[in-house]
Amino acid sequence: MFSKVLVANRGEIAVRIIRSLRELGIKSVAIYSTADRDSLHVQLADQAVCVGTQRPQDSYLNMNNILAAAIGTGAEAIHPGFGFLSENAEFAEMCEDLGIKFIGPRPETIDQMGNKEHAREQMIKGHVPVIPGSDSYVQTVEEAKQVAGQIGYPVLLKAASGGGGKGIRRIESSQELERSFNEAQSEARVSFNDDRMYLEKIMENVKHIEVQVFRDDFNNAVYFPERDCSLQRNKQKVIEESPCPLITEEQRQELGEIALRAIETIDYRNTGTLEFLMDQNHHFYFMEMNTRIQVEHTVTEMVTGIDIVKAQVTVAAGEPLPFSQADIQLNGHAIECRINAEDPQKNFMPSTGEVSYLYLPVGNLGMRIDTALYPGSVVTPFYDSMIAKVIALGNDRTEAIEKLKRLINEMVIMGITTNQKFHLAILNDPEFIAGTFTTNYLEQEFLPRWKGEVRSETVS
Amino acid sequence: MFSKVLVANRGEIAVRIIRSLRELGIKSVAIYSTADRDSLHVQLADQAVCVGTQRPQDSYLNMNNILAAAIGTGAEAIHPGFGFLSENAEFAEMCEDLGIKFIGPRPETIDQMGNKEHAREQMIKGHVPVIPGSDSYVQTVEEAKQVAGQIGYPVLLKAASGGGGKGIRRIESSQELERSFNEAQSEARVSFNDDRMYLEKIMENVKHIEVQVFRDDFNNAVYFPERDCSLQRNKQKVIEESPCPLITEEQRQELGEIALRAIETIDYRNTGTLEFLMDQNHHFYFMEMNTRIQVEHTVTEMVTGIDIVKAQVTVAAGEPLPFSQADIQLNGHAIECRINAEDPQKNFMPSTGEVSYLYLPVGNLGMRIDTALYPGSVVTPFYDSMIAKVIALGNDRTEAIEKLKRLINEMVIMGITTNQKFHLAILNDPEFIAGTFTTNYLEQEFLPRWKGEVRSETVS
Repeated sequence: MFSKVLVANRGEIAVRIIRSLRELGIKSVAIYSTADRDSLHVQLADQAVCVGTQRPQDSYLNMNNILAAAIGTGAEAIHPGFGFLSENAEFAEMCEDLGIKFIGPRPETIDQMGNKEHAREQMIKGHVPVIPGSDSYVQTVEEAKQVAGQIGYPVLLKAASGGGGKGIRRIESSQELERSFNEAQSEARVSFNDDRMYLEKIMENVKHIEVQVFRDDFNNAVYFPERDCSLQRNKQKVIEESPCPLITEEQRQELGEIALRAIETIDYRNTGTLEFLMDQNHHFYFMEMNTRIQVEHTVTEMVTGIDIVKAQVTVAAGEPLPFSQADIQLNGHAIECRINAEDPQKNFMPSTGEVSYLYLPVGNLGMRIDTALYPGSVVTPFYDSMIAKVIALGNDRTEAIEKLKRLINEMVIMGITTNQKFHLAILNDPEFIAGTFTTNYLEQEFLPRWKGEVRSETVS
Repeated sequence: MFSKVLVANRGEIAVRIIRSLRELGIKSVAIYSTADRDSLHVQLADQAVCVGTQRPQDSYLNMNNILAAAIGTGAEAIHPGFGFLSENAEFAEMCEDLGIKFIGPRPETIDQMGNKEHAREQMIKGHVPVIPGSDSYVQTVEEAKQVAGQIGYPVLLKAASGGGGKGIRRIESSQELERSFNEAQSEARVSFNDDRMYLEKIMENVKHIEVQVFRDDFNNAVYFPERDCSLQRNKQKVIEESPCPLITEEQRQELGEIALRAIETIDYRNTGTLEFLMDQNHHFYFMEMNTRIQVEHTVTEMVTGIDIVKAQVTVAAGEPLPFSQADIQLNGHAIECRINAEDPQKNFMPSTGEVSYLYLPVGNLGMRIDTALYPGSVVTPFYDSMIAKVIALGNDRTEAIEKLKRLINEMVIMGITTNQKFHLAILNDPEFIAGTFTTNYLEQEFLPRWKGEVRSETVS
C-alpha cells in the first residue's frame, strides 16, 4: 500500500479524498493555488504545496509543478479527483514515466474513451448498444437518406472533423435532409478540408442513466446500481439519485451486464462510469465513458455502504478489489443536490464572497454533506461554483426526498447566494416526485414556469 | 398517524426527535426553559412553548406545564426522549388520562421496571438469567452463609429497604460475612425498621452488554444486535459500540432470544433496552431495563440503517412495527463518543460558555454527529454536560476507530472546553483497540495512568 498520496485537486473532492486517505493511514499531500492558501483541503492534508497562481492553467492544470510537488514530497501516487487533470492521458503518462502511480485507468484507456468516435467503436466491438447512427461516414445525400431512414428522424447531421458548431444540422425529415446535406457538406469541406459526414439519431424524452464500474488488475469486475442524472441545467447535473425510480431489478442486471462487457472489451482498470441514454421503452444507448471518479459517486456510496475512493486507492496499489458483486447491495434510495454559489433569480449568476455564517445540519441517520466550506472560508470567482453536495439516504425515495428537504431547509450559508431554494422547488415538484422527468425537463418545462418560489409547505 | 407531537426534552435528543418528526410529515412542538430560549430545538420545531425557568423541576420536569403545552398546542402525543420524564410512570399515566399518547411503554411497565426487585422477579419469571443472589430475603447469618456459598464470593450484602449506603457491605469471605452480618442487620433495623437482608454476587471483570428491543401492539417483537457500553466513568457511559467485539453470531442470537423472552413476559410495548453484565465465560446476567430510547441508540441505527425514533412514533400510533427480525442486519461496526463540555485535566469539571467557533466535519461515508450546538449557541450550567455525539460506521471495527479519530481531530469547538482529547487517547489505547476492556477499565486502569496526553500520531 502507498504511504503517501498527492491529491491533485481542490474543493470538496480534495477534502473527501484526503479524508479517506487519512482513514487508510496514508499521508496526504495537498496542492493549492495562491487563491486557495486558506482552503480546507490545505488545512486537512498532512502536507501542502503551492503549485501556482489562481488561474487553473497556472496551478491545478500545471502538470510540471504538480509532478514536481509529488517528487519533492515523496508521494508514490496521485489522485486526480474529477475535472482538472483527471482525464488527461498525457498527465497520466507523465506520472507513469516518473514511476508515480496515477490513480485511474491506463493512459491509453483515457485517450481512447476521451475520443467519442473511438469510444463508440470500442463499444460496438463489445456489443454495447450505442446511439443509432451511421457506422461509418457518409459522403452522398443518397447514403445519408438511407441511413437516416434506418435510424429514424430526427437525426443530427455532423461533420466528421466537426467542431464549433460548423457543419452541424438538426434534420427532421428526408426532405430537410435533401435540402441541407450539400450545404452542410460544403461548410465542412471549407472549414475542415474534410467533407465526410456523420449521422446520429437525436434522442428525445430520454433519461440520463449511468453505471459506475470497477475493475482491478486480476480480472475482477463489478458494476454498481445505476444512477439517474436526468435533472440537468446548462449540461450540468443538478440532482442525481440511485437507483433510477423507473428501472426494475431485471433491467438493472441487464444494464450491469452491458457495462461489464464494455470494460472487459477495453481492459479497463480502476473505477469509471458509462453514461447511457434510456428511451421510453427502457432501451439503453451508450453516450460516453468518464474515466474517473464523478461528483455523484456519493449517492452510490450511500446506497451501497462502499467507500469508492478507498477502493480506488487499494486497486491502484495493485491489490484486488476489496468487494465482490455480491457485496454490492442496494440499501434504500439516495439523492444528491449540488449546492452552487449562484443566484437562480439572476440567471444563475455565480456568487462569491466570504462565508460569514455557516450552519450544516449534521445529525440523524442517512445524511451526508460533502463540502470544503467552513465559517470564514472564501468562495472565489476562479473555480467551479459547486460548493457543497447534500446527500440523503432513505429507506425509499419518498423518505430520501423528505430528508433532503429538511437538510436544505436547515442549512444556513451566509455571505454568498446559493441555489438552495431552487433545489427546494424541484424537490416539491410533482414531476420530480413522480420520477418521470427526462433530460430536458428542467430547462424546457420546470424553469420557464418557475418564478423563484418554493411551495409554502417546504419552508419552515 | 399523529399530526402533531410534543417533544418533552431539550438538547441533541430533542433536535434528533424533531428531525425525524419533520421527515414523517408530523408537526413538532418544542418545550423550553427560560435558559433555552435560543436553543436549536426551539428553532427547529414548528412551535415552541416556554414551560418554566431554568431549574429542571420548574420546566423540563414540570408535568403540569408540559401537559398544558400539549393541550394548548393540540399535540396528540408526547415523546419524552431520555432523562427528565422519560421513565416517570406517573407522567405516562397523566398523559393517558388526558388522551395524549405517551411514546413509550405502558405506565405499569415503567413502574415495574423502575423497581429493581420487581424487575428482577419478572425476569426470573421469564427465565432470564439474573445476577446471582438470594431469591428471597435472608434473616440469619446461617441463611446468609448458605446463599453466599452457593453464589460465590465476593458478595454484596444489602438491606431490603436499603438506600443511601446504609446497611450495605462488600463481603469477601464467609469469615467476613460472619463478622459483618449482625452489624449490617442492626444498621438496617435502626435505619429502616426492617431487618431483612439481601445478597447479590459482585460481578467483576465484566462487560456491560445491552440489547435494544422493540415490540408493537400486535405481538411483533424484534431485538437489535447488542451494544458494548463497558467504557464508563462515574457510572456514565463514555464510548459505546455495536456489535460487541467479543460476541459471536451464535451468542448474539442467544442473547436476542433471552431479550425477546423478557419483553414477552412483561407484555412490553415500544422500544426499550435490557442491560446485562457479561462475565469472562460470556454468560449474561440481567441488570436492569431502560424503558425509553437511550443516548446510544445511534450506533444501532448506524449499524442497521433503521431509524428507531421513527419506529417509536409509528408503533405508538398503533401501527405495526415497520420492520421484521429479518430486516435487522448488522452492516459493519459503529462506535459513538460522547463529547462533553468538561475539562478532563481538571477532574472533568463541567465547562460552560458561548460556542464562539464551530467546525463539524460532516463529509464522507459513515459519519454522524448529533448535537444541538451551532455557532453562537450557549452551554449553560443547568443541564447535562453532553453536547454532542460523534458516531462512525466502518466496514469493521478498525475502520470505525480510524474514522472516529479523524472526526474528533477535525472537529473544532471553541469557547468551551471539551473531552475530545480524552476520547482520542482512548481511541489510541491498546486495550481499547483489543476490545477486551471491562466496566472498571477506564476508571481503574486507564485514567490513573493517563496524563492528559494523546499519542502523537493521533493529533494532526
